[in-house]
Order: sequence, then C-alpha cells, then structure tokens
Amino acid sequence: MNFETQVRVRYAETDQMRVVYHANYLVWFEVGRVELLRQLGFDYRRMEIEQDVAVVVVEARVRFKAPARYDDVLTIRTRVTHLRRFVLHFGYEVVRATDGALLATGETIHVITNSKMEKRTLPPDCEAALRSAIA
Amino acid sequence: MNFETQVRVRYAETDQMRVVYHANYLVWFEVGRVELLRQLGFDYRRMEIEQDVAVVVVEARVRFKAPARYDDVLTIRTRVTHLRRFVLHFGYEVVRATDGALLATGETIHVITNSKMEKRTLPPDCEAALRSAIA
Amino acid sequence: MNFETQVRVRYAETDQMRVVYHANYLVWFEVGRVELLRQLGFDYRRMEIEQDVAVVVVEARVRFKAPARYDDVLTIRTRVTHLRRFVLHFGYEVVRATDGALLATGETIHVITNSKMEKRTLPPDCEAALRSAIA
Amino acid sequence: MNFETQVRVRYAETDQMRVVYHANYLVWFEVGRVELLRQLGFDYRRMEIEQDVAVVVVEARVRFKAPARYDDVLTIRTRVTHLRRFVLHFGYEVVRATDGALLATGETIHVITNSKMEKRTLPPDCEAALRSAIA
Repeated sequence: MNFETQVRVRYAETDQMRVVYHANYLVWFEVGRVELLRQLGFDYRRMEIEQDVAVVVVEARVRFKAPARYDDVLTIRTRVTHLRRFVLHFGYEVVRATDGALLATGETIHVITNSKMEKRTLPPDCEAALRSAIA
Repeated sequence: MNFETQVRVRYAETDQMRVVYHANYLVWFEVGRVELLRQLGFDYRRMEIEQDVAVVVVEARVRFKAPARYDDVLTIRTRVTHLRRFVLHFGYEVVRATDGALLATGETIHVITNSKMEKRTLPPDCEAALRSAIA
Repeated sequence: MNFETQVRVRYAETDQMRVVYHANYLVWFEVGRVELLRQLGFDYRRMEIEQDVAVVVVEARVRFKAPARYDDVLTIRTRVTHLRRFVLHFGYEVVRATDGALLATGETIHVITNSKMEKRTLPPDCEAALRSAIA
Repeated sequence: MNFETQVRVRYAETDQMRVVYHANYLVWFEVGRVELLRQLGFDYRRMEIEQDVAVVVVEARVRFKAPARYDDVLTIRTRVTHLRRFVLHFGYEVVRATDGALLATGETIHVITNSKMEKRTLPPDCEAALRSAIA
C-alpha cells in the first residue's frame, strides 16, 4: 500500500552538476513518512510533543537511478514494509511526475523511542494503522 | 577587531549556476559568530545548556559581491559591532583565501534570550569580553 | 500585488532551538520568486536554459518576527517592488497559514545576467509582466 | 587504508531532536571522499573542469549508531573499497573526535562519468592511486 506526496525541486537542492544533490532524497523520504502518517490520521508533530514518541532513523539506503532536476515535480511513494515492537521499516520510490520515470528507490529503518532516545513501542492506534498499511 | 575562521566550500553548497547557493552565507556567518565566541574563551554550546542563554537572530542582511565556488577556501571575518543590554550586532566579511577577494559582506542582529525565548542579558563575563571586542 | 505560495516546514529545516533555522527563509523566498514568475506565465527553468537569463541575488535581508516551527504550513507572499533595466527587487512576507501570524519579512535585490554573469535585460514579455505586477 | 578529515557540527545541521539531522552524514561522506582524493594528490574540482571527470553517486547507505551533536568535532574516516573500470566504492566511519565513539558507518557506490553523464574510466594516474589505496 503506497502513500503518495509531491515535492517540487528547489534551486537550493541542485548542485553544480545541474542535478539534485543526492542527500536531499533523504529529506524527501522524511517528507514521505510524515505524509504517510498524516494520511493514516496521525500527526507526527503532536505525537512527538503529546505522546513523547520519536521515530529515529538508524539506517538509510538510497539507489539513484536517474537525476532529478531543478523545478521537477516529484512523486514520493512511501510504504511501511515492516513493524515489529520498536523497529519500523519504510520503502520509497521517487518518480518524476510528468513522465513517471523512476529516479530513486530507498529504504529506511527506524527505532521508536521517547525523547530521551529510550526504546518504546508506538501508541496502539498508530501501531495498528501502520500494521494494516503493510498488508 | 576581526576574528577569523575558515570554511571550505562543499559540493552540497553549490547550485546549478556553478556557484555557492546564497543562503549558505548565513550558515557561515553563524560559524563565524561561534568561532568569535570560542576565540574569546566562550563555548556557545555550553552557554546554551549550562547558562540558558540563546543568541537569537532577529535580522540578517547579506550583500553578495562575487561568487564563491566549489572547493574554495573562504575566510569568514566576524566582528562585534554593537551590544546594548539584550541586543547584539555582528558584522561579517567573506573573503576568498587564495587571493583575498571580497565575496560578501553582511550583518546580523540578535536578541539574547533564555531557552523560552524571553529576553535576558548575557552572562557578565561574556558581555564584558564582547564589549572589549568592539573597541 | 502579492503572489502567494505555500510550504510546509520540514524536519530538516528545524534546529535544536526547536524552531526553523533562519537561513531557510532565503530558500523559501526563492520558492516565492519562482512561483510569482509561474503565476505570471513564466517558467524560470526554461528562461535559464532557452533564453540564457539568470536572476542573480546581490542582496538579501530578512527580519525574523516570530519562529516558524516543524510542520507549520507557511504562506510566502511575494511581490515585485522595483524593476529598472537589469536590477530587480522583490519583497516578501512569511505568514503562518493557520492563524495569519506574520513570522518574517524580507527583501532581495537581483541583477539580471546571462549564464556568464554578464548584465542583460529581461526578455521583453517578462519585463512587461513584472512591471505590471508592481502597480 | 583510511584517510581522515574533520568537520565541526554546525547549528544548521542540528534538528529539533537536538541531534544532527541524518541527511548531513551524506554531505560529510562527500567531504571525506574529496579529502581522500586531495591526500592522494588529486583535486576533484580540477578533475571535473580540466579532465571532464565526474564521480556520480549511484548508491548510498548509512547506519546511525549514536547521535552527533552541535559543535562536536567529528573525524570522517574514508577508504576506497573497490574499483573496477567505471565503478568505485567508498567506505566511511564517522567518529567523535573527543572520545573516539563510533557514530555512523556507511558506503557509497559511484559511477565515473563525463559531464554528459556517459560512463568513462578515471584518468590513469588517479586510477592507479586509488587502486594502491585499496590495498
């Protein structure tokens, strides 16, 4: 089950190769995760503040297939791929909106913690929603 | 009284004009401020944590004279220009280290606050050191 | 005549004060300029490539009124304030969308150049459109 | 054979978790690669311009072990792990300089291209130097 959001490439995100600097894909993956949660009915900002939940990145991987360029509109497709106690995996595809070209794929692995970076589980309603989104 | 520190331009800081993206100068100004404090004997990280002091930017201005380019070594020259109660001004010059070319000048204005963003004055020793650095 | 576009604050744009790092406002101003041009019917990406036009920042100024925070939706209001031969001025307001609070104001001054950074004027249709947007 | 360079964490690189935002490690890896080349006698900036060589990232992976924090001095340890025709692999460790704590490890895979993103091999002297650095 894919969740989609769009970003438009900013001038600041390009580099002198005239393509997007590669680290920005990790920023867009984070945008994808937050929008996935929002589409499931969860507000990550409030979860951090009100429920003392943090979704901390412990591993990230990106494969760059074709360059994104300035002003491209990109679709970020995000899916939950694994959830077990305090470990959560997401998968991503970055696609150019105009022609559907696949520009990058990636995965991130996260540990759920409180604000002191101690492991904890997700609030039950959020865990249930993510679990159903895997199927 | 100028305080100097150096940065080398990173690939991530360039844009597709093949020059440094202009917002990065504000990041370097911040590096300049922190190194000025360090050269005066003050550790901004510890001041934030141990003394509940924040130096919040309320205004910033930059004039871009000539482009910085990838891998350039830049000298950031920072000086304190004004300090009165909880208001602090800094001035900056960004100079290319190889030939001394002036690439940018700027100013920032700050308010001293605690971590709740309530105005306060600097710790007396830091205030005295900054005041003597103006002269 | 104000042109509006919206951005949502990304986690990457926050800093350890729990507010947006101030340099990001310059990135959003750039988003505002490009969307102003788009709303007037001009595509800055194509202007760069097909017409050899660059709108180079020579001065930028920002006044920070109140902090933007993670996940805030912000309205960037951009207007053309001055255009004379190869010099172009923009003004900006950054407003929190939920309550209309004014978070920052700013101005940028630009020189129109070709890709070799030699001064030139804008294409006549774009110049006329910007001129009419000042009124 | 490890090559080392140091960076100091900038305020801009932190996020509201009070740690470094994870995408910045990819920026530091790039700093590590360029300094590795410099220590071997090669200037990446000149290679791009004078020899039409680009070292394009096609895959990146990072494992985050412990957070880097504002003002930390970090040692970036970079090594060449594989070179075959136009494919080049690097490995990285990010270590806190004060106590040697391992904060992150990573790998990047690159394709050597010209400025049109067509595959090519490295200049022979650079290829020989990188090959000897693997051993």
